[in-house]
Amino acid sequence: MLRNRTCGELRKSHVGEAATICGWVDKYRDHAGIVFIDLRDRYGRTQVKFNLADGSDVQQLARSLRYEDVIQVTGEIVGRPDDMVNPKMDTGEIEVHAKTLTVLNKSKTPPFEPNGDNLPNEELRLKYRFIDLRRNELQQAMAMRHRISQAVRTYFDENGFLDIETPILGRSTPEGARDYLVPSRVHEGNFYALPQSPQLFKQILMVSGFDRYYQIARCFRDEDLRADRQPEFTQVDVEMSFVDQDDMLEMIDGLVAAMVGSVREETVSLPLPRYTHAEVMEKYGTDKPDLRFEMPIHEVTDLVAECEFGVFQNTVANGGRVRGLCVKGAADTYSRRILDNDLKGIVAEYGAKGLAYFKAAGGKLESSIAKFFSESQQQAIIERMHAEDGDLLLFVADTWKVSCAALAALRNHLGRDLKLYDPREINCLWVVDFPLVTWNEDEQRWDAEHHPFCSINPEDVEYLESDPSRVRAQSYDLVCNGYEAASGSIRIHDPAVQQQIFDLLKITPEEAERRFGFLLEALRYGAPPHGGIALGLDRWVMLLAGYDNIRDVIAFPKTQRASDLLTGAPSPVDERQLRELHVKVDIPE
Amino acid sequence: MLRNRTCGELRKSHVGEAATICGWVDKYRDHAGIVFIDLRDRYGRTQVKFNLADGSDVQQLARSLRYEDVIQVTGEIVGRPDDMVNPKMDTGEIEVHAKTLTVLNKSKTPPFEPNGDNLPNEELRLKYRFIDLRRNELQQAMAMRHRISQAVRTYFDENGFLDIETPILGRSTPEGARDYLVPSRVHEGNFYALPQSPQLFKQILMVSGFDRYYQIARCFRDEDLRADRQPEFTQVDVEMSFVDQDDMLEMIDGLVAAMVGSVREETVSLPLPRYTHAEVMEKYGTDKPDLRFEMPIHEVTDLVAECEFGVFQNTVANGGRVRGLCVKGAADTYSRRILDNDLKGIVAEYGAKGLAYFKAAGGKLESSIAKFFSESQQQAIIERMHAEDGDLLLFVADTWKVSCAALAALRNHLGRDLKLYDPREINCLWVVDFPLVTWNEDEQRWDAEHHPFCSINPEDVEYLESDPSRVRAQSYDLVCNGYEAASGSIRIHDPAVQQQIFDLLKITPEEAERRFGFLLEALRYGAPPHGGIALGLDRWVMLLAGYDNIRDVIAFPKTQRASDLLTGAPSPVDERQLRELHVKVDIPE
Repeated sequence: MLRNRTCGELRKSHVGEAATICGWVDKYRDHAGIVFIDLRDRYGRTQVKFNLADGSDVQQLARSLRYEDVIQVTGEIVGRPDDMVNPKMDTGEIEVHAKTLTVLNKSKTPPFEPNGDNLPNEELRLKYRFIDLRRNELQQAMAMRHRISQAVRTYFDENGFLDIETPILGRSTPEGARDYLVPSRVHEGNFYALPQSPQLFKQILMVSGFDRYYQIARCFRDEDLRADRQPEFTQVDVEMSFVDQDDMLEMIDGLVAAMVGSVREETVSLPLPRYTHAEVMEKYGTDKPDLRFEMPIHEVTDLVAECEFGVFQNTVANGGRVRGLCVKGAADTYSRRILDNDLKGIVAEYGAKGLAYFKAAGGKLESSIAKFFSESQQQAIIERMHAEDGDLLLFVADTWKVSCAALAALRNHLGRDLKLYDPREINCLWVVDFPLVTWNEDEQRWDAEHHPFCSINPEDVEYLESDPSRVRAQSYDLVCNGYEAASGSIRIHDPAVQQQIFDLLKITPEEAERRFGFLLEALRYGAPPHGGIALGLDRWVMLLAGYDNIRDVIAFPKTQRASDLLTGAPSPVDERQLRELHVKVDIPE
Repeated sequence: MLRNRTCGELRKSHVGEAATICGWVDKYRDHAGIVFIDLRDRYGRTQVKFNLADGSDVQQLARSLRYEDVIQVTGEIVGRPDDMVNPKMDTGEIEVHAKTLTVLNKSKTPPFEPNGDNLPNEELRLKYRFIDLRRNELQQAMAMRHRISQAVRTYFDENGFLDIETPILGRSTPEGARDYLVPSRVHEGNFYALPQSPQLFKQILMVSGFDRYYQIARCFRDEDLRADRQPEFTQVDVEMSFVDQDDMLEMIDGLVAAMVGSVREETVSLPLPRYTHAEVMEKYGTDKPDLRFEMPIHEVTDLVAECEFGVFQNTVANGGRVRGLCVKGAADTYSRRILDNDLKGIVAEYGAKGLAYFKAAGGKLESSIAKFFSESQQQAIIERMHAEDGDLLLFVADTWKVSCAALAALRNHLGRDLKLYDPREINCLWVVDFPLVTWNEDEQRWDAEHHPFCSINPEDVEYLESDPSRVRAQSYDLVCNGYEAASGSIRIHDPAVQQQIFDLLKITPEEAERRFGFLLEALRYGAPPHGGIALGLDRWVMLLAGYDNIRDVIAFPKTQRASDLLTGAPSPVDERQLRELHVKVDIPE
């Protein structure tokens, strides 16, 4: 080894020992010929002092050092005088008094310093990703990602799951929009497809009797980049046999506790709360509620049907809903301008035509429209909303769908804006009993809410033909801090039931055979009851690290620019290669 | 859970308890209306006895069961009478007396039985992979693969390595023959490339200061399938900073012990032996010697220069070598016909013109050509070869290269044929000090033996210009049972040295920039000394499971036939998809 110590481990107890450390020059100070270096490696930083005879080779070499040079230093570990102790550094009680210095590699002047406070824009940092990755934030993110992955693996290993690799080069299906296609040199004119998920493979593994499977699997989607999306992403993929929904949720509860426990001090209290889809839509307007703060939606439709406020009246008359939020103690927080512009703008984005607001004061409602409500109506609203003096009441009157979307967005904004929660908190819940299908108005048919392999709640079989919208799937989402952090279902294992669902979704036998033939065939030869789930690893690292940008939790993210080193956009290839693949590029002018 | 016990766990100590088990009907016997089922799951098999009133529903249902039906049985765990104990089954001391039976899924009659002795050909088994995967051999292979992977992960985690994911969608380089190319929908007319290895990414991670990296990485090569090769394969990929070659070998020694220990009783004795490339070529004729048996090659060139046997004489005169093997106790093992046909055929395949053979008897050589050797020449040969009476001596007289290849192949054949080792034994060794370059006669230039990033042995710098063939790389192969089980090197971290190597390999600056630009740029900004290695996971599972067919250690291997379920060859895609990708398939008639 070129070192016997790292830059992160030296403490007062090491004083008097000799050390050889290696790393990057992180800081550099020359005080009247005495050189101080902060030497950095993955494990920390250590102050090195060069205080040798002025003309010495080592001292001269030390004076030539610059940021990001890679060096090896041998010296004595010395305690710092009390007034020189640096409490901000783990190694702040000591310094190394250098005896020898070897420059392992000089660095060109870096375009930015990875320890600097004034970071350049992300474009430059992505171009020099190898320097950006030296920053503490990214070093921590990768270390955290490792620890979380390792916790996942240990948890599943301890619970008898097998890590089984499924193919990256899979079969293309004609309908696979958003599949990346890969032409094969060996099989002329034919293509593989990169998987959007190992869904069908893991179901086959259950049919094959592997009983408990997991994989940290790479998945692909040929779509535009977004702040929270990459064309390749990583999924913790799970499937179990001979289980029901409760077994699955309980198993994943344990996983969540293990993941959080791997990087956080706090413990997660189990079981995670479970809500039905109907419940969260009613109470929070979304199937991804952020429950770090409460603030439920209250329905007042019945209370305002008779009021004299036209907007409410008409909405109720047209079968719409009047629902609202009670913002505790916020009666005077927002000016009329903010209410009429900013907050109204948020609900307008989701199609709401207006935002009605009141203050609760003296046991009544105050507002320019309060006069349209009788005293008893006001009382009833205040009671329904659990409002107290000083609260702000906000209402959207619209269709069920619009009121859900608008109020959910407004609720999220208020939680963030009013700092109603600790942003580092992790809050998880299950949403279960999703509807099996939703009506596709454009194509006049039922679409699967998750995918066509979800089994249905046995109680709802009777509605499969009479009223499909009432049928609940045995599917479940894990929601964390307002994001979908996992999604899964108990699968159909009976080919006859599968056929029923295909019929409902108007998938013809030919289409089913073409798209899912291998799974359907497998189901005919003894498929066990089974179910599974997939967790987005990138999202989990973002949640646990507290980062908003997906590029901060992936070592080499894709970017839009072909010029970015390594991580850039795809690039042209030459004629010879295309000829060998029997492919021609054909871009319309 | 649909069960409270698995089919593998019940023992005598459970007798009297109630059990609910689930699984597949593995065996079925109807003895005068009493039905016996062997029920199978991943964990084992349990005998279930249905001995209920003849007309009962359960009994009737039991009599309708057939192979591979999936059932749930509840019953009492009962000890078998002593004469009915089945010592071949782990659960052979008990049986479950069924009280209830639920058929979870009927199976169509399977095309073959996964527990059968008469397996059909591999073609049919691959077509019905989901049934083949139920076979004990494949269940064991996947479980072993899991245990080995988990051991790798635990080992590296304990040694401070970070598991960092590198991209699957990478940059294409114009020279990347055998790269799979992936057209992008979003970036019209541009392509990603799938990585043949994460080599450059892991070097960048070292430049970025991650210090210790590992990944179990999927890699891709667009080549024909072979029995030991798949277009996608899995590599245990490792890189470390601030280390020299000894540090690397020591770290991987520990990994090998952990991998073997995860699935075998025996322990590996460390350190693994280390040989130089020159040594193994001299002694075994190959850089991948199988050292489960000894039988070294002995050189007798100097001893036979003066003999009267024309073939040896001429070889020596032309600068060739006479080398041979001493096969202990095999003087009478092979007939003249086998020696002259089979064994000679093996060396002929590698270009050797003949195979000379002798028996050692009475302290002398016996053979049709023995008369051409004086008594003292015979004595000297016997001594050099450590031959004793009853040994068979085999010689190849040819160029150095041909004698190496021919004798290595012959040695492997003899070891196998004479059963000189236990085929289950695992024997590992390091080969170090590979030559940096080999002369490419066709193109009249030096080629890199490994890749152009290998650093060189500091002692050999002086030969870099004067005699490149003498320069030893700091590269190392781990050889196991005659296979390359890992390969790596200490890398160049100095851009100036890297330039020297490119010059030697006649890689122009433009070409270097195009192919490796991002790495070269990174090396200029403070790259630490670093090195790494990659282990073929598929090969390791084959070695440790004792399987010869790579398709037996991969759940969903690729095959040549497009008709195979899931695992088949790539397939055509439709016009619309190609249009969206802006590519045209263009196969010449």
